[in-house]
Amino acid sequence: MGTRASAELEVFPNPKPSRDYTIRIDSPEFTCLCPKTGQPDFATLKLRYIPAEHCVELKSWKLYLWSYREQGGFHEDLTNRILDDLVAALNPRYIRLQAKFNVRGGVYTTVIAEHRAPGWQPA
Amino acid sequence: MGTRASAELEVFPNPKPSRDYTIRIDSPEFTCLCPKTGQPDFATLKLRYIPAEHCVELKSWKLYLWSYREQGGFHEDLTNRILDDLVAALNPRYIRLQAKFNVRGGVYTTVIAEHRAPGWQPA
Amino acid sequence: MGTRASAELEVFPNPKPSRDYTIRIDSPEFTCLCPKTGQPDFATLKLRYIPAEHCVELKSWKLYLWSYREQGGFHEDLTNRILDDLVAALNPRYIRLQAKFNVRGGVYTTVIAEHRAPGWQPA
Amino acid sequence: MGTRASAELEVFPNPKPSRDYTIRIDSPEFTCLCPKTGQPDFATLKLRYIPAEHCVELKSWKLYLWSYREQGGFHEDLTNRILDDLVAALNPRYIRLQAKFNVRGGVYTTVIAEHRAPGWQPA
Amino acid sequence: MGTRASAELEVFPNPKPSRDYTIRIDSPEFTCLCPKTGQPDFATLKLRYIPAEHCVELKSWKLYLWSYREQGGFHEDLTNRILDDLVAALNPRYIRLQAKFNVRGGVYTTVIAEHRAPGWQPA
Amino acid sequence: MGTRASAELEVFPNPKPSRDYTIRIDSPEFTCLCPKTGQPDFATLKLRYIPAEHCVELKSWKLYLWSYREQGGFHEDLTNRILDDLVAALNPRYIRLQAKFNVRGGVYTTVIAEHRAPGWQPA
Amino acid sequence: MGTRASAELEVFPNPKPSRDYTIRIDSPEFTCLCPKTGQPDFATLKLRYIPAEHCVELKSWKLYLWSYREQGGFHEDLTNRILDDLVAALNPRYIRLQAKFNVRGGVYTTVIAEHRAPGWQPA
Amino acid sequence: MGTRASAELEVFPNPKPSRDYTIRIDSPEFTCLCPKTGQPDFATLKLRYIPAEHCVELKSWKLYLWSYREQGGFHEDLTNRILDDLVAALNPRYIRLQAKFNVRGGVYTTVIAEHRAPGWQPA
Amino acid sequence: MGTRASAELEVFPNPKPSRDYTIRIDSPEFTCLCPKTGQPDFATLKLRYIPAEHCVELKSWKLYLWSYREQGGFHEDLTNRILDDLVAALNPRYIRLQAKFNVRGGVYTTVIAEHRAPGWQPA
Amino acid sequence: MGTRASAELEVFPNPKPSRDYTIRIDSPEFTCLCPKTGQPDFATLKLRYIPAEHCVELKSWKLYLWSYREQGGFHEDLTNRILDDLVAALNPRYIRLQAKFNVRGGVYTTVIAEHRAPGWQPA
Repeated sequence: MGTRASAELEVFPNPKPSRDYTIRIDSPEFTCLCPKTGQPDFATLKLRYIPAEHCVELKSWKLYLWSYREQGGFHEDLTNRILDDLVAALNPRYIRLQAKFNVRGGVYTTVIAEHRAPGWQPA
Repeated sequence: MGTRASAELEVFPNPKPSRDYTIRIDSPEFTCLCPKTGQPDFATLKLRYIPAEHCVELKSWKLYLWSYREQGGFHEDLTNRILDDLVAALNPRYIRLQAKFNVRGGVYTTVIAEHRAPGWQPA
Repeated sequence: MGTRASAELEVFPNPKPSRDYTIRIDSPEFTCLCPKTGQPDFATLKLRYIPAEHCVELKSWKLYLWSYREQGGFHEDLTNRILDDLVAALNPRYIRLQAKFNVRGGVYTTVIAEHRAPGWQPA
Repeated sequence: MGTRASAELEVFPNPKPSRDYTIRIDSPEFTCLCPKTGQPDFATLKLRYIPAEHCVELKSWKLYLWSYREQGGFHEDLTNRILDDLVAALNPRYIRLQAKFNVRGGVYTTVIAEHRAPGWQPA
Repeated sequence: MGTRASAELEVFPNPKPSRDYTIRIDSPEFTCLCPKTGQPDFATLKLRYIPAEHCVELKSWKLYLWSYREQGGFHEDLTNRILDDLVAALNPRYIRLQAKFNVRGGVYTTVIAEHRAPGWQPA
Repeated sequence: MGTRASAELEVFPNPKPSRDYTIRIDSPEFTCLCPKTGQPDFATLKLRYIPAEHCVELKSWKLYLWSYREQGGFHEDLTNRILDDLVAALNPRYIRLQAKFNVRGGVYTTVIAEHRAPGWQPA
Repeated sequence: MGTRASAELEVFPNPKPSRDYTIRIDSPEFTCLCPKTGQPDFATLKLRYIPAEHCVELKSWKLYLWSYREQGGFHEDLTNRILDDLVAALNPRYIRLQAKFNVRGGVYTTVIAEHRAPGWQPA
Repeated sequence: MGTRASAELEVFPNPKPSRDYTIRIDSPEFTCLCPKTGQPDFATLKLRYIPAEHCVELKSWKLYLWSYREQGGFHEDLTNRILDDLVAALNPRYIRLQAKFNVRGGVYTTVIAEHRAPGWQPA
Repeated sequence: MGTRASAELEVFPNPKPSRDYTIRIDSPEFTCLCPKTGQPDFATLKLRYIPAEHCVELKSWKLYLWSYREQGGFHEDLTNRILDDLVAALNPRYIRLQAKFNVRGGVYTTVIAEHRAPGWQPA
Repeated sequence: MGTRASAELEVFPNPKPSRDYTIRIDSPEFTCLCPKTGQPDFATLKLRYIPAEHCVELKSWKLYLWSYREQGGFHEDLTNRILDDLVAALNPRYIRLQAKFNVRGGVYTTVIAEHRAPGWQPA
């Protein structure tokens, strides 16, 4: 794995798959472009998940976020797409992503999406 | 859509209607007039909703709030009317509006109203 | 309604009785007298209620609080009496009063009481 | 009641026994001795209870805490003993005591114990 | 018990085994080595447990944490291993460990794991 | 003096002109229009002054700020104009005005201007 | 000295008159009446002084503040009058009083006055 | 002026050149690339200046910052270069730039540089 | 040196007497008795000094503070006495002691005293 | 330069030696051993300096701090030694180091030392 922006999320085997436990990853350094104006947008992403067989590799997560640096995206769409990518890569028991965008025009927007594996229940 | 105050709320199609997810919009720049004294009132509005088919367009929300600048309104009435407008425009699965008014006479007032689509349940 | 302390609570018709919504009123300027020592006591009152047919008029609430300025009262008793007065005036669906008294002798005391209309349930 | 440390907790009749309401008493000035080293320990006690027939008199609570000034006690034991004394004196519907001890050796310890009257249920 | 790092956790008898109560222990001074780079990692550990027959001795907990000073460990694995050691030593009714690691590469990671004794239920 | 927006600042005689003392007035409810876009701007004004013969009447200050509600003005110009009006009305020994505007486009702007009476020196 | 409001400030001999040292007394429980409306005003007083021959007795300061409970007074006048009373009673080397009044009409007012003994200089 | 990143800083005439006053501009959305690793860096820039004949146009400042998005730069060099560009464009009486970079490897770095016009003195 | 309260302050040689540097020691666990009521008082002590030939040994400082546990003392007198003891033991170039006492009767008191070696000047 | 602890501080040429500017480096991840007990100590180091010909390389600073991981050192001595190493490596115009050690025995200790190049004066 190099040090370039990459749309690929790498994973590693969950060291304790027998236990439902939570991993929280906060990333205050997310930036993309506004699809309307082309100008930079900034957000803090807060990820929480209960791994099944795999965990996301942290450096790969950082490079994945970097890959949005020159991409445009609406807040609502972007948050759901990142969550979908994480679900595809991790197939987690539970996952929740919060994207808190920086204020624009006096308005602060946050989008929060979650996903549960079919049939999984909190203990 | 111009840059004038407007009582019209514009919407766009929810990019992920298959998922129940939450959009939070905080607007600390709401101002209207006190219906008793005619003097300016100020409030912070906090909106949270789970979209169904539509999301509120952010610039339109900003112009909508602007349209209250020269209107009078009692705290309790205003909060319920804004919520009603949002329900009419968005027909959301769930929506909650909190209006936290600036202190007057040593008293801090906040009004919180919510609405659920008939039959909708949190997952 | 004048600008004198008054034990009377005035009300106005709830503008949206069809919806269960919450009104929060924080009053950091409550003062009464300690029934033991006669010296001033200070408290912050936090009121939250779901109105039924009536809402409390804010200026009247301020004058009502003022009426305690030269009255003595034990913390536990005072909080319950104010709640009872509010229940009598408003007959609300739900109401909760928190009185957080200033520290005395290194001890911080808060009293919290609530009331529900018989048969009322949160949605 | 004098102004000396006293292991005795005094009570007074609950002014509103017909209502389940909560009394919170925070006491940041608790100090005792470490049973291992004999050196002073410090803690903040946070008490919350729903009175039945009696409330604890605040000055008596202050003198009671003072009575630990020259006593040794392990964190876990001390917290349970104070709770037991309160239960014996008040026979409350519900009571909860949190003792947050000052850091020792880079470790912050808090002990939290609660008790419910048999058969009592929150509304 | 000396003052050397030690992988051994010492316990003492729970002074109040008849009551379900909670012990919280916060340790902001945890450090280990990154298994990839060999460089120091730092974390704050937050432990909460309901003891059964035994409580963890605080000095022994401090020496146990010290024993990680020259050990490598992935965040997810480390947190689960420390929880397993605590479960083995204490056999508690309930236990929860949160390990909040210091930021690396703009990413903040926290791992949270818990364990319940089979058949135990919160009151 | 009525309750309408007014560009007039009223003053009253300084009750203690023999002493250099400071009056601070913070006004978080200032709003005007952006001269470029016509959209509302918001700011918090912080005024500090040492009165000479006159003090500004607080209600008149409030009505004066209100008079900007439908006026446009660049940040730098507006702050200096308000300061000039205060100097003209009060002729103070010292005066300082800080206008902290709400964020626009990810940029937070504050303008700070002060004035001293010729020959006046701090003690 | 009893426990009644009293306009009299009592003093005691400075235990260390050979040293310039500072005494700070913060009193968040000041209340008086607004001379315009007759309604209660509230303020936090912050006193700092370097004693000469006398220090102010703390209980007497509390009773002195209490004596304003039913008095009216403009912010600027009140602050200077209290400072004058302190100067008369203490004749201090240096004294500074800050009165931070609670918000009224969206405006926060603070008055700060100080006095130095003729010829006294900070070390 | 378009909405593209631009290395050009636009200015406008100072509306009050006769007065020394301060303009503060905080920009929490600065990002560039690390010249060693090529990975994104993030910083908050805090600018304060006393204008002479010109002020910096805010939108142009935003576009100027945007122009660093794909540029590399060492912290110390970058801060001085931005300050030099501002001095060249504004020729201000006084200017100070603080660049607070996000943590890397457990280390938080801030660079602060200032410039004064020859012969200018604070009042 | 044992682990008993001790009025003796122990010192050790300053490891860098050629440099004027500052040592700050904050002690939030000071307790003594009120000389009027005999009841416990609590304070946070903040010490700052520039050592000459000696530094205060930290454990000895802790035991010294402990020695006040059963002593009475007025705030002003106590602070000056502790400073005098430190001056006698350390003979420092500069020393400053702040004692911030816990609130009593709604009044917060802090006493701050300092001492300089004759002829010493800050660099 | 590898990724091992190293007592060597590497430097690079100051990119703007013609200007006096400040570099702040905060390092909350410093750990060493207590020379009395052999147990781990923790501190936050805050460095501020005005470079002359050289700046400290950040990774080298991190490895330098790491080199203290298994060294003992008294607070006062350690702070002065680190400052001396920085002076030797950088020969800066001005430098200041603050070491804020974690609480031990209820006592918080901070040591602050600074150095100026002979003849250098702040602008």
